[in-house]
Amino acid sequence: MTARFARPAPPLLWSLFLPAIVFLLSACSTTAPVTLRGSGDLGVVIERADGRVKIIETTGRSVLATVDGLGDLSHASVVFSRDGRHAFVFGRDGGLTKVDLLEAKIVGRVVQAGNAIGGSISHDGRLVVVQNYEPGGIKAFDADTLELLADVPAASEDGRRSKVVGLADLSGQRFIYSLFELGEIRITDFSDPRKPLTQRFAGGKQPYDALVTPDGRHYIAGLFGEDGLALVDLWKPELGSRKILAGYGRGEQPLPVYKMPHLRGWSVAGGRAYLPAIGRHEVLVVDTGTWQEVGRIAVKSQPVFAMARPDGREIWVNFAFPDNGWVQVIDTLSGQITHTLQPGRGILHMEFLSKGHEVWMSARDDNRVLIYDTATKKPIGGFDASSPSGIFFTTRAARTGF
Amino acid sequence: MTARFARPAPPLLWSLFLPAIVFLLSACSTTAPVTLRGSGDLGVVIERADGRVKIIETTGRSVLATVDGLGDLSHASVVFSRDGRHAFVFGRDGGLTKVDLLEAKIVGRVVQAGNAIGGSISHDGRLVVVQNYEPGGIKAFDADTLELLADVPAASEDGRRSKVVGLADLSGQRFIYSLFELGEIRITDFSDPRKPLTQRFAGGKQPYDALVTPDGRHYIAGLFGEDGLALVDLWKPELGSRKILAGYGRGEQPLPVYKMPHLRGWSVAGGRAYLPAIGRHEVLVVDTGTWQEVGRIAVKSQPVFAMARPDGREIWVNFAFPDNGWVQVIDTLSGQITHTLQPGRGILHMEFLSKGHEVWMSARDDNRVLIYDTATKKPIGGFDASSPSGIFFTTRAARTGF
Repeated sequence: MTARFARPAPPLLWSLFLPAIVFLLSACSTTAPVTLRGSGDLGVVIERADGRVKIIETTGRSVLATVDGLGDLSHASVVFSRDGRHAFVFGRDGGLTKVDLLEAKIVGRVVQAGNAIGGSISHDGRLVVVQNYEPGGIKAFDADTLELLADVPAASEDGRRSKVVGLADLSGQRFIYSLFELGEIRITDFSDPRKPLTQRFAGGKQPYDALVTPDGRHYIAGLFGEDGLALVDLWKPELGSRKILAGYGRGEQPLPVYKMPHLRGWSVAGGRAYLPAIGRHEVLVVDTGTWQEVGRIAVKSQPVFAMARPDGREIWVNFAFPDNGWVQVIDTLSGQITHTLQPGRGILHMEFLSKGHEVWMSARDDNRVLIYDTATKKPIGGFDASSPSGIFFTTRAARTGF
Repeated sequence: MTARFARPAPPLLWSLFLPAIVFLLSACSTTAPVTLRGSGDLGVVIERADGRVKIIETTGRSVLATVDGLGDLSHASVVFSRDGRHAFVFGRDGGLTKVDLLEAKIVGRVVQAGNAIGGSISHDGRLVVVQNYEPGGIKAFDADTLELLADVPAASEDGRRSKVVGLADLSGQRFIYSLFELGEIRITDFSDPRKPLTQRFAGGKQPYDALVTPDGRHYIAGLFGEDGLALVDLWKPELGSRKILAGYGRGEQPLPVYKMPHLRGWSVAGGRAYLPAIGRHEVLVVDTGTWQEVGRIAVKSQPVFAMARPDGREIWVNFAFPDNGWVQVIDTLSGQITHTLQPGRGILHMEFLSKGHEVWMSARDDNRVLIYDTATKKPIGGFDASSPSGIFFTTRAARTGF
């Protein structure tokens, strides 16, 4: 297999083409060594308004390339191949685009639905699964070729379709997701992609988003149609789903669904989950052993994301309009807010380096990506981007639920 | 920065060198596209007896290349660059070797001490730090050039040197380690590598190994000179170190240090730590909130490693000679042993894929690396390797304490 690695051509042969060598060597050298790089420090920034992504690297904090032609990237999300070379970008228009981060080009694209809301990748990296609003269901694609392997409608016995939300990867080639209209949680096993097997759980009234905990044990769906959340203990699936946090409601007055906090914005740190309260200026603290609320932390405005720094020591919170220029930092040890920052206008997303020493933030209305040192809480870099939204690092490839 | 990516030379220029092009294009093409690959699914297997490492990839479960000339690799360990391209291999002979995993070659090597026992890398990836037995201390090197930046002796006021063990990376450019003869725990901050600052804690009698918990909060040193362990809460360093698990002793009769279980073989899962008992056929279960022992699980023999599958659902245990051909699996939910396996002879090390669906094991006395599916507990692959010991995947690059 060493043939897979670079070898110089034999010296004798080279000498036959002396005039050509000088020029062509430089052609080779700008090709091979320059493109040869690790993929562990790469990432993608969504430029939602332009259907483009920027490919970035986190060691030098620089932009490597921009790739366009990805369609409608509002609410776009990204998963990565196991080797960190390819990004699978899920667009709102049902587009699934495979981007080669090393060659900075699109290597595959299918428009697989009319209205989609993200996707996931199997633990073995072979299947990419997309969750669709219209037509409601999930579809599994070959990660190499983007060939459609399975189409699993989210339908009731009488054929009513439902939007799918909260898709997450489980062990094996299983995926869990929630059905908004039908109020169900389903697990589909693609071990035989041509013959998917689906298991069903009660999901509560109108699940609108969900997450799987970092250990892959608990799946939690937020409910738009009622207060509280639906929980499935995936280590004890025989118990089915149960209702938790009946106090986790829609607040004093119902809010339109587009203002609901992202459940992916939840954090689990030190045996506690930190949840953006809905319609309240609070972050809720929940014991993940009992799933009981154990505290509330008053914050500046309506929280959207409450993101744990990977070491769990801090929770970084951003807010809904008109306070979406603010970010607050909670110290999980004291339960107190230690920093209130105003990094830029329209902070949509925060992504931490895997060891937590930097956080990258999208400032949509400043057309900038901002890079902060989490120890000093000071900016240490940044770059221009057109209406940046999601930021995704390839280190996600190693994590369940990402 | 798009210039960093491959571009064909202008067609006109090419046409001037037609005879040369056919041959040289193939030279280019065997260089660039073949070596171009992601680094997220790469790894290194130590062939301890031959001073060699095998470079492997976990997607196809294959060996890509073998690199030799790394010196004495007994008790060798490895850390990776942030981008996953380079492996830093720490040899017992004080050798620090930088291997380019994509080009399968050594790109740097220094013999920096007479007797060393592993190393670590800073969170920003700029510093590689080695812990040395002889002369006792730590040294910091530039990760790019392997230039020596700082030499920090592990010495007392009166100049007595001590072996260093249990080195681990902390946030910032800080490293924590233990001094065997001097019974101290020290934290050295290399923020200014030319002026390192060191903080000292009591470490107990003869700390022989240590670990930092996955969240980077707790540093725990095993003690050879007394029962129990030394704990530092790095979120409350002002409290200094304290003694925990006074019952964690050397067993009925003292054992030679080379038989002490690796503390790196500890696991923290679901708020509990699983520790190989010393001199007993047990795995101890400890509550990481109180650091009190909450249970013991009887196992087949003297455990060496008790490794948690990344989801925390299972603990895989291997054993000391003469039972080092056995592996047992503990279900953390029931606390029971669910599987007793005999995968091969001389199981020295187990490495899980980051999502936990496979475990790779070194069977030293069979000269094989064995790959098991953790769901079925059945072999799904493997390859020959000469006296394989440590197995290290590049996904470690994203984790604190690895």
